Amino acid sequence: MSDLLKEYALHELSPSDKEAVVQRPRIDFGSIADIVGPIVDDVRERGDDAVKELTKKFDRCDLGEVCVKLSDVPWPEGLDKEVTDAFDTAFENIKVFHEAQRQEVLEVETMPGVTCRRMSRAIGSVGCYVPGGTAVLPSSALMLAVPAMVAGCTTIVLATPPRQDGSISPEVLYCAKKSGVTHLLKAGGAQAVAAMAHGTQTCPKVDKIAGPGNQFVTAAKMMLQNSEAMVGIDMPAGPSEVLVIADAGADPAHVAADVLSQAEHGSDSQSVLVAIEGVDISEVQREVREQLAALPRNDMATNALSHSFIVRVGSLEEACEFSNLYAPEHLIVNVDDAERSLEMVENAGSVFLGRWTPESVGDYASGTNHTLPTYGYARMYSGVSLDTFQKKITVQSLSKEGLVGLGPAVEVMATVEGLEAHKQAVTKRLQSIHSSNS
Amino acid sequence: MSDLLKEYALHELSPSDKEAVVQRPRIDFGSIADIVGPIVDDVRERGDDAVKELTKKFDRCDLGEVCVKLSDVPWPEGLDKEVTDAFDTAFENIKVFHEAQRQEVLEVETMPGVTCRRMSRAIGSVGCYVPGGTAVLPSSALMLAVPAMVAGCTTIVLATPPRQDGSISPEVLYCAKKSGVTHLLKAGGAQAVAAMAHGTQTCPKVDKIAGPGNQFVTAAKMMLQNSEAMVGIDMPAGPSEVLVIADAGADPAHVAADVLSQAEHGSDSQSVLVAIEGVDISEVQREVREQLAALPRNDMATNALSHSFIVRVGSLEEACEFSNLYAPEHLIVNVDDAERSLEMVENAGSVFLGRWTPESVGDYASGTNHTLPTYGYARMYSGVSLDTFQKKITVQSLSKEGLVGLGPAVEVMATVEGLEAHKQAVTKRLQSIHSSNS
Repeated sequence: MSDLLKEYALHELSPSDKEAVVQRPRIDFGSIADIVGPIVDDVRERGDDAVKELTKKFDRCDLGEVCVKLSDVPWPEGLDKEVTDAFDTAFENIKVFHEAQRQEVLEVETMPGVTCRRMSRAIGSVGCYVPGGTAVLPSSALMLAVPAMVAGCTTIVLATPPRQDGSISPEVLYCAKKSGVTHLLKAGGAQAVAAMAHGTQTCPKVDKIAGPGNQFVTAAKMMLQNSEAMVGIDMPAGPSEVLVIADAGADPAHVAADVLSQAEHGSDSQSVLVAIEGVDISEVQREVREQLAALPRNDMATNALSHSFIVRVGSLEEACEFSNLYAPEHLIVNVDDAERSLEMVENAGSVFLGRWTPESVGDYASGTNHTLPTYGYARMYSGVSLDTFQKKITVQSLSKEGLVGLGPAVEVMATVEGLEAHKQAVTKRLQSIHSSNS
Repeated sequence: MSDLLKEYALHELSPSDKEAVVQRPRIDFGSIADIVGPIVDDVRERGDDAVKELTKKFDRCDLGEVCVKLSDVPWPEGLDKEVTDAFDTAFENIKVFHEAQRQEVLEVETMPGVTCRRMSRAIGSVGCYVPGGTAVLPSSALMLAVPAMVAGCTTIVLATPPRQDGSISPEVLYCAKKSGVTHLLKAGGAQAVAAMAHGTQTCPKVDKIAGPGNQFVTAAKMMLQNSEAMVGIDMPAGPSEVLVIADAGADPAHVAADVLSQAEHGSDSQSVLVAIEGVDISEVQREVREQLAALPRNDMATNALSHSFIVRVGSLEEACEFSNLYAPEHLIVNVDDAERSLEMVENAGSVFLGRWTPESVGDYASGTNHTLPTYGYARMYSGVSLDTFQKKITVQSLSKEGLVGLGPAVEVMATVEGLEAHKQAVTKRLQSIHSSNS
């Protein structure tokens, strides 16, 4: 049987080969924008009516109300206790880790009498996009709404595509009710993003939209962040990806399972295995084949594996170097001394360290966020965190002494820049101080 | 003589009046994009040659090298000690405040054996845009490069339009040399932004671009953040603005000076005065008229004042409520008990607190950053800070005990979401643990 994953040896790759290998499959945003643009315009102009028509078209669902207050929706019935317990555990861990991200007011006296502070404030109104499509994703509801709740946002709209009968999955509803969501927007796709960005008759206008989504959702987010809608977004999003670093001691069955758990996300997912010398690569390939055969989402995973690959390297250092070049959304470090890798990690969304930390624990329940930068954006974006739902405001306060000490330097710099009124705002105050002292 | 600033009374404004009053003048991004798009494409395709041609066209300057290593450029000569001392003071204060923003690795054990961490890493290669145009702005060089240096970015490109002889202002050069800038890109406008985003023969490709600029610079940044260039930006930028809250004890001369120091930034700047009962508004109007007459940038300031205004309110609470609705870039609180306002401030870029804190101290030297969200974006964006030049990476590590405790919940949630391989990544590890224990 042929191997599913193609293989490279790092030392045989030239710098330009490496650049080519880490390149993600290209997304044609131009043609997607042509589809999304008219949808966004339609929702801006006609609001709920447009959302209803588009939901009928794309989700085959006749919506009554487009957006409802979540307090008007009863808790879902009939969920197994095992299921609610599991989501309760995830909720608690996510809450604990995001609460720990709260920062005290930072205060520094940079010079005598010159006090600088930085304080955090919740963004007032936010939108959380929870994809539907090929899977029901209550975990995404927790990953977005819990940080928004911890931040203290007063309006939290959760958007998710309805089922054909107009209802929402009970697990998503359960997670939304737990996490302080205030409004439920029963829509998906570009139409949901546009409804939140501009507001409709029933949906509040939000200041920022977070959450993963398909290419139409992403295109709408990117388009709207540059528009008159006055809305921020968390980050651009591409297909999901994992890079696994494994050494000789990594169990090939575990490695294969990690490779496949990424591959089953979608046909456009990518799994990369960086195998340090000593890994039994043929055994990993065999495990991938065998485990793949047993997967319900076999087709999707097979497609994803066709653009996945293995890179053979000589050391953990080389492995980390390649990983930083790739900048993976998820980085699994399944090696003997995993802690040692951490200081070498420069670019990654989230790191899964050691033998007993599969990506799925972070996807659901360890406490970290699973909304992460993909497509190489881990070079400059962070995943969703408490920061996503806050802004930081700086504050300065000068005493008379502070202004007497700092003011003359400000007068000189304002003069250099030719901004006389900037200088005068200091000069007139210094005159007041000196005349009251004399 | 007629009053320069129009006046409203808050209690006479309906909610929709208020919405209209806080609305910023509309910017026509469509027609700007039509100009900027071809420039960006040209620089992507032809690199330095395009930058040279565009610089000749717009800055009337024949460039030799487009981008040079700053270590190859000598320190500027002939600067007054008074000037270098002033910039040294600003440098120190900015450095101290941004160093204080460094965060230790956050570490939380969310459950026994489940450790979650968050660590900061510098963005490798960044671009700092320092505008030229109507003023020389060395302060912007400090405000961008110092945080990038503190973050530990390895490549820091500073872009600024050259003077007609191809040189850079000695003050900007001085600040760049002090602040760890590695490359000097002698270009401005959309062509400079495109050169940094895509890289050219002489200019390194950067991962993120920060800094203020005119509407062409802003349009290029926004366009490129949505493109294949794979580049982040700090925030959208509009014209500069200030909102001053004053009470009866505020010196009208100081209030007028603050209003004018914003107005002199540019014709499209906006100054808002929120006057609590007791302010002698006619005296403020008189001071504005009188001080304006003495300003070299009189024309610009007069234009800016034509769309500036005064709102009369009854209390500090009402003043803060209106300010939050406006969401100013700069908020000056010139009142008796300024500290009390802080907890009421929800939306602002930076706050200037008390009688002796004009905006100009923060524009130059208190230590806070002057690159701030304008145009109402203070609702959801923060100003430039250390965070601008870093990303946060989460890390999780589970012990065997941790996986035994958390794994079953993950298996249940993965089953709910129909992601069998996600479940298997846990199940196979739990099997290994149980078989080694038995």
